[in-house]
Amino acid sequence: MKTGFIGLGIMGRPMAKNLLKAGMDLMVADLNKDAVAEVTAYGATEGTYAEIGAQCERIILMVPSGAISKSILFGQDGVASTIQKGSIVCDMSSVTPGESRECYEQLKSIGVDFLDAPVSGGEPGAVNATLAIMAGGEPEVFEKMQPYFSILGSSALLIGGPGSGSVTKLANQIIVNNTIAAISEAFVLAAKAGADPEKVYQAIRGGLAGSTVLDMKAPKILSRDFTPGGTLVINQKDMKNVLNAAHELDVPVPYSAQLYEIMQYLKVHGHIRDDHSGIVQYFED
Amino acid sequence: MKTGFIGLGIMGRPMAKNLLKAGMDLMVADLNKDAVAEVTAYGATEGTYAEIGAQCERIILMVPSGAISKSILFGQDGVASTIQKGSIVCDMSSVTPGESRECYEQLKSIGVDFLDAPVSGGEPGAVNATLAIMAGGEPEVFEKMQPYFSILGSSALLIGGPGSGSVTKLANQIIVNNTIAAISEAFVLAAKAGADPEKVYQAIRGGLAGSTVLDMKAPKILSRDFTPGGTLVINQKDMKNVLNAAHELDVPVPYSAQLYEIMQYLKVHGHIRDDHSGIVQYFED
Amino acid sequence: MKTGFIGLGIMGRPMAKNLLKAGMDLMVADLNKDAVAEVTAYGATEGTYAEIGAQCERIILMVPSGAISKSILFGQDGVASTIQKGSIVCDMSSVTPGESRECYEQLKSIGVDFLDAPVSGGEPGAVNATLAIMAGGEPEVFEKMQPYFSILGSSALLIGGPGSGSVTKLANQIIVNNTIAAISEAFVLAAKAGADPEKVYQAIRGGLAGSTVLDMKAPKILSRDFTPGGTLVINQKDMKNVLNAAHELDVPVPYSAQLYEIMQYLKVHGHIRDDHSGIVQYFED
Amino acid sequence: MKTGFIGLGIMGRPMAKNLLKAGMDLMVADLNKDAVAEVTAYGATEGTYAEIGAQCERIILMVPSGAISKSILFGQDGVASTIQKGSIVCDMSSVTPGESRECYEQLKSIGVDFLDAPVSGGEPGAVNATLAIMAGGEPEVFEKMQPYFSILGSSALLIGGPGSGSVTKLANQIIVNNTIAAISEAFVLAAKAGADPEKVYQAIRGGLAGSTVLDMKAPKILSRDFTPGGTLVINQKDMKNVLNAAHELDVPVPYSAQLYEIMQYLKVHGHIRDDHSGIVQYFED
Repeated sequence: MKTGFIGLGIMGRPMAKNLLKAGMDLMVADLNKDAVAEVTAYGATEGTYAEIGAQCERIILMVPSGAISKSILFGQDGVASTIQKGSIVCDMSSVTPGESRECYEQLKSIGVDFLDAPVSGGEPGAVNATLAIMAGGEPEVFEKMQPYFSILGSSALLIGGPGSGSVTKLANQIIVNNTIAAISEAFVLAAKAGADPEKVYQAIRGGLAGSTVLDMKAPKILSRDFTPGGTLVINQKDMKNVLNAAHELDVPVPYSAQLYEIMQYLKVHGHIRDDHSGIVQYFED
Repeated sequence: MKTGFIGLGIMGRPMAKNLLKAGMDLMVADLNKDAVAEVTAYGATEGTYAEIGAQCERIILMVPSGAISKSILFGQDGVASTIQKGSIVCDMSSVTPGESRECYEQLKSIGVDFLDAPVSGGEPGAVNATLAIMAGGEPEVFEKMQPYFSILGSSALLIGGPGSGSVTKLANQIIVNNTIAAISEAFVLAAKAGADPEKVYQAIRGGLAGSTVLDMKAPKILSRDFTPGGTLVINQKDMKNVLNAAHELDVPVPYSAQLYEIMQYLKVHGHIRDDHSGIVQYFED
Repeated sequence: MKTGFIGLGIMGRPMAKNLLKAGMDLMVADLNKDAVAEVTAYGATEGTYAEIGAQCERIILMVPSGAISKSILFGQDGVASTIQKGSIVCDMSSVTPGESRECYEQLKSIGVDFLDAPVSGGEPGAVNATLAIMAGGEPEVFEKMQPYFSILGSSALLIGGPGSGSVTKLANQIIVNNTIAAISEAFVLAAKAGADPEKVYQAIRGGLAGSTVLDMKAPKILSRDFTPGGTLVINQKDMKNVLNAAHELDVPVPYSAQLYEIMQYLKVHGHIRDDHSGIVQYFED
Repeated sequence: MKTGFIGLGIMGRPMAKNLLKAGMDLMVADLNKDAVAEVTAYGATEGTYAEIGAQCERIILMVPSGAISKSILFGQDGVASTIQKGSIVCDMSSVTPGESRECYEQLKSIGVDFLDAPVSGGEPGAVNATLAIMAGGEPEVFEKMQPYFSILGSSALLIGGPGSGSVTKLANQIIVNNTIAAISEAFVLAAKAGADPEKVYQAIRGGLAGSTVLDMKAPKILSRDFTPGGTLVINQKDMKNVLNAAHELDVPVPYSAQLYEIMQYLKVHGHIRDDHSGIVQYFED
């Protein structure tokens, strides 16, 4: 059985390679022909969206946005134009829950299953196959995708129905990025008051302020090392999904809205390729 | 040697009792005579501020604000009117670093040492003697206060010079309270999108979004149990100290400023006595 | 010569009637058949988008969003499928400058002119033909549309190239809506401090704080009369266009972002059909 | 009858001169001896606070903050230590309504009347005697101060009881400064979208977005002329009074809180001596 894999970016490329290493027969597609070459060199074959639709019973998407997912699936000569009943499309991209539900419903109507299954863990997680996978959809469909998830990640959890995976990823990003901003305020204030931020970090990390993101990002902030990790540009994209989802669902998100504007500010001032710990630069002189 | 202990509120009362249990000879003061009675019943004697100044070489303050600390120390018939050279005043209240430095300098000028040493851990930490103590001042003075800290808490750390303890406490509060707000946005969004917040919590807690405050507050948020813990009224007071300190030190703190207004909103709508996990109520219908 | 008019909502209906009254030969379209009937009763004929494209040299759009404009123009059997070279499409809807430029360029490529010409003045302006029209596009095209503008409004100004009209409308909405929020803060603060808001209004209206929006909205706020005028739902839509445009153009808009979330809050609490002076309700108990 | 005038800053100096020109017998005080010399050269005499208290039945204050007002009045050897029953203290400084009420009550208790009467109009208004005076207090007291107000300003209005003048000034500042920020967002967005901001200004000024502050500040923003007018440093001080008053009165002021942080940002980046139209610099690249 062939597996389709569409989207060979910074995340998709190592994920595809991991599937190939595990012996999967992959047909891949990407607009970037260098990326395709890199992966076909590992044993994948290239196909158009329609060819992938026609020949693959399982199709994984790992693309930059829900609009792109939808256009690959439902655009002219897209995957859905040829896909077989009973196939599964698994969208591992970060999109809004509304977009995932749309894909679910549109595929359902032609007898195709859909699972949203975005990931956290970033490029290192994709390379080392330690991604955390958050899925939304039907339990039987989730079961059928487990062989893939066990190759690609270190955990996979079915949260609920269609869109639940996507919103869990967004919830994760809300907490991570806003916490980085709060940490930034705290460290800049402490430093301006004359306290050594390293000692402040050591003093608070064992208490209620302690967090994984503090332990991951405080050293970067303290050493002013903003090499990514997760770039601001990627995290801003996720925060835009947060805003879109929240506005569709009528949830006030003043924190995320404010953060988005701070990210805009950092973009305008040339920091958008930094790690998201670079948010701290907004608070400094 | 007598020890002075001024401020017998929700925190000060159990702290004073722990010192008494450990055999210390305490002279105490508080405007609330019931609180004084409760602690003298454990063996403390009562004294005026001036009597405490005259008779105690070590004086601990645990009061609601820096303005109150300063008035107890430097007001008419205050502690400083009678205090002996070589004594130590240790202010364990949550105040701004500027207020701590003021106390430090004013006492220094009359030959008295000062240490700012606020705590985290809340009422349970005070009762169980598991407070985390963050100190600012001179190393010799910190050493001399260690016997007290080892009775009152489970850790004590000297961060740096005068005011460093106070600003560390503020940094802690910035992170904790703003993270609760971010968690609130995330959970309300997830729930409105139809995902089970409990499963979302389980899915993200092991990753970058995981934190002590998430593990402490998510269960309260999920079960809608806003009995304190740490009240909004106390945390708002700390956030006001954050704003005052930041505005004095020229640090933009848009997150904390926004949070303060959300806390105002919650106060106006009757939630100010809730646990600070009750911040979530702002984001809900 | 026939004129096409697409979009017969609260604004489009009276605008179409004013054109009919002035003797224009209108072919109209709307999904709402009651609205079509109301306008054909005044002498218009009904047509499909393709019929309007084929038969009308001047086509006016007055629809809820840029996405709808684009779908009417470029969707299957849309206006662009039949339109004649040399015709003019004039989009008077409130859309983003990017959407206007897209329409301009796509029509340009098939030899058709385009003008963005959104309006301010609301329903009363549409009924009384006192709209203020802000246009973007080429001067010759603007000249050719002047006969329409002089019927529909009391002023029409060409701001600049394609998209300039749309962004001027957005600039207007940023100022109007955020000023209402500022006025709200001011009046609620004054009232809580015990001052009579009516007297405060009289005291400040002659100075730097004086504005048309203050004179229009203060009486509504003071009398708690939130019957629209301009509804929050319409203004929120405009503010979403502001956010989309700003994020596309890399302009940080923290005020508009915050306002959008406040509007979300008001929506969730049941106020979205109120006049936008109802923003004040966010600041009250 | 002698009149006391305390506070000879950028506002107080020209106000004192206008009173002298009108033939008043002034006794003045200020820490800045050059300022005192400048005004005594016009015919004033210098006095201590206590001398002013003892000899003047009408005493005007024009100082930087409510804390300073209170210390001049109630500090050691202050005005209140010598003031005669039946005298009037009129505080024309910008302070919080709470501070004004405190002064009112403390003076009342010793038989002295108090009026809060802050002004708008800035340095030009002080020089040209065209200030707008907003007063709070008792009608009889307001009447007795009218001769002064008619010399100093072009309008004086009694808003209500003690503190009403002060809160009216704050309401004015909330609207003016937040509107400048909204105008800034609007103009930066328009410019980035390629529209000529001057034309945008002309297009919108006649409609709902039109305001006195737009007409005063748009030309400064468009010509990038940030010479004051009203400096950011003065307006930030007023916004701090807004925050303090709002937090005391339990009014959520998210706009003013956000603006204060933007002002902090501008201060940190060296713009605090600019005219408040310089707020626009926050939104630009």
